[in-house]
Amino acid sequence: MPTSIARAVVIGASGGLGQACVQHLIQQGVPEIYAFSRTGQAFSSPSVHNAQLELCDEASIAAAAALAGQNGPLQLVIVSTGLLHSGVMHQPERKLSELDPAKLATDFAVNTIGPALVAKHFLPLLDRQQRSLFVALSARVGSISDNQLGGWYGYRAAKAALNMLLKNAAIEMGRRNPRAIVLGYHPGTVDTPLSKPFQRRVDPTKLFSPATAAGYLFDVLAEVSDSDSGKVLAWDGQQVMP
Amino acid sequence: MPTSIARAVVIGASGGLGQACVQHLIQQGVPEIYAFSRTGQAFSSPSVHNAQLELCDEASIAAAAALAGQNGPLQLVIVSTGLLHSGVMHQPERKLSELDPAKLATDFAVNTIGPALVAKHFLPLLDRQQRSLFVALSARVGSISDNQLGGWYGYRAAKAALNMLLKNAAIEMGRRNPRAIVLGYHPGTVDTPLSKPFQRRVDPTKLFSPATAAGYLFDVLAEVSDSDSGKVLAWDGQQVMP
Repeated sequence: MPTSIARAVVIGASGGLGQACVQHLIQQGVPEIYAFSRTGQAFSSPSVHNAQLELCDEASIAAAAALAGQNGPLQLVIVSTGLLHSGVMHQPERKLSELDPAKLATDFAVNTIGPALVAKHFLPLLDRQQRSLFVALSARVGSISDNQLGGWYGYRAAKAALNMLLKNAAIEMGRRNPRAIVLGYHPGTVDTPLSKPFQRRVDPTKLFSPATAAGYLFDVLAEVSDSDSGKVLAWDGQQVMP
Repeated sequence: MPTSIARAVVIGASGGLGQACVQHLIQQGVPEIYAFSRTGQAFSSPSVHNAQLELCDEASIAAAAALAGQNGPLQLVIVSTGLLHSGVMHQPERKLSELDPAKLATDFAVNTIGPALVAKHFLPLLDRQQRSLFVALSARVGSISDNQLGGWYGYRAAKAALNMLLKNAAIEMGRRNPRAIVLGYHPGTVDTPLSKPFQRRVDPTKLFSPATAAGYLFDVLAEVSDSDSGKVLAWDGQQVMP
């Protein structure tokens, strides 16, 4: 965790975990918080700059970065976005016969390419004078070695691809800004619309409220070291292997 | 390796390695070989059915599968396709600032979604009475754990995503057709137009002619066991870890 956070960014601030992260930052007294979402969700705290960001539009991401970087370097960027299901046209595939090229392309656009473009535009804004953090939501189901059940083809593949891009970004930042740490993060199962259809599989003690999940995230970030850059860490601090 | 191959399919049969695989199958006396490529590359052997296949068009893949399955089950499917570079508009990214959403979308369309759709349509055609093999070209640079250098963002991410989809497909086939083995394959650096711009980095003894690379592939396939399904294997038979 950066020793002090002057400026933090949350992208996906209208989602359950994103909202809870913004609330946590407000409570921690972070003076300058940029909350980006597709809807432009408005937090009423005077420390929060609310703005719109469309993950599938690079110009929108670039404009958001220009706004967030206007007053100086960033110490923390949280990318709390992700698409698992959306109506009847976008459901996780249970089997190969359900693969659809347009659905798969959307999975990669939202879960991989969007966060990669955020990294492109926000990583150059990270503080070089003290430790700074860029953390993007990944998921344990994006682990190839951990995959025992199969299914969820597009979501799994897009998160695996995201993990590769984060590893690549960590390597590049190791050369450009060695104080910056780039992470993927598995929050566990958070009680949000994303997980709702799948919660019956989950041990109730492992279904976290957004506030609890945000607490775990900040606990993990507090313990992160340079050697963690490029890894995916889970809510319990353990690495999720590729 | 299947004990006997009555029917084999090579997709990407106009590429260096794909051509060499078809030649190898002809020399081995396989009676029914389906050679698919975008150009419809024509092999003159009477055992080869030449046909056109467009990897970014699911209808074309479905038609190819209908043709290849017309006479009975398949014992071997080789997906020897891949896009690393193509003119000035499609070059592997050296750094984040070069990321382009359209270029990334093309990487996923060609290197991930296309092979996944091939799996969708061809895996159901694999033999259930004897061991059958589906092998798709992956690459060591698609390994997250092996990634030390960074760069090549889109290609690396697309191959990591492909590896996840192959793992998923292997799990599904474990339930549907336990005699079928699904593999990713790293052929090493093959002396083809794909590797041409990057060959100066390669130890000359590790730059394989297409015929040599095809020989290694068939050597590896001859040694494959059920427990290898879902893995990425390299030309030397070693697993490439995720």
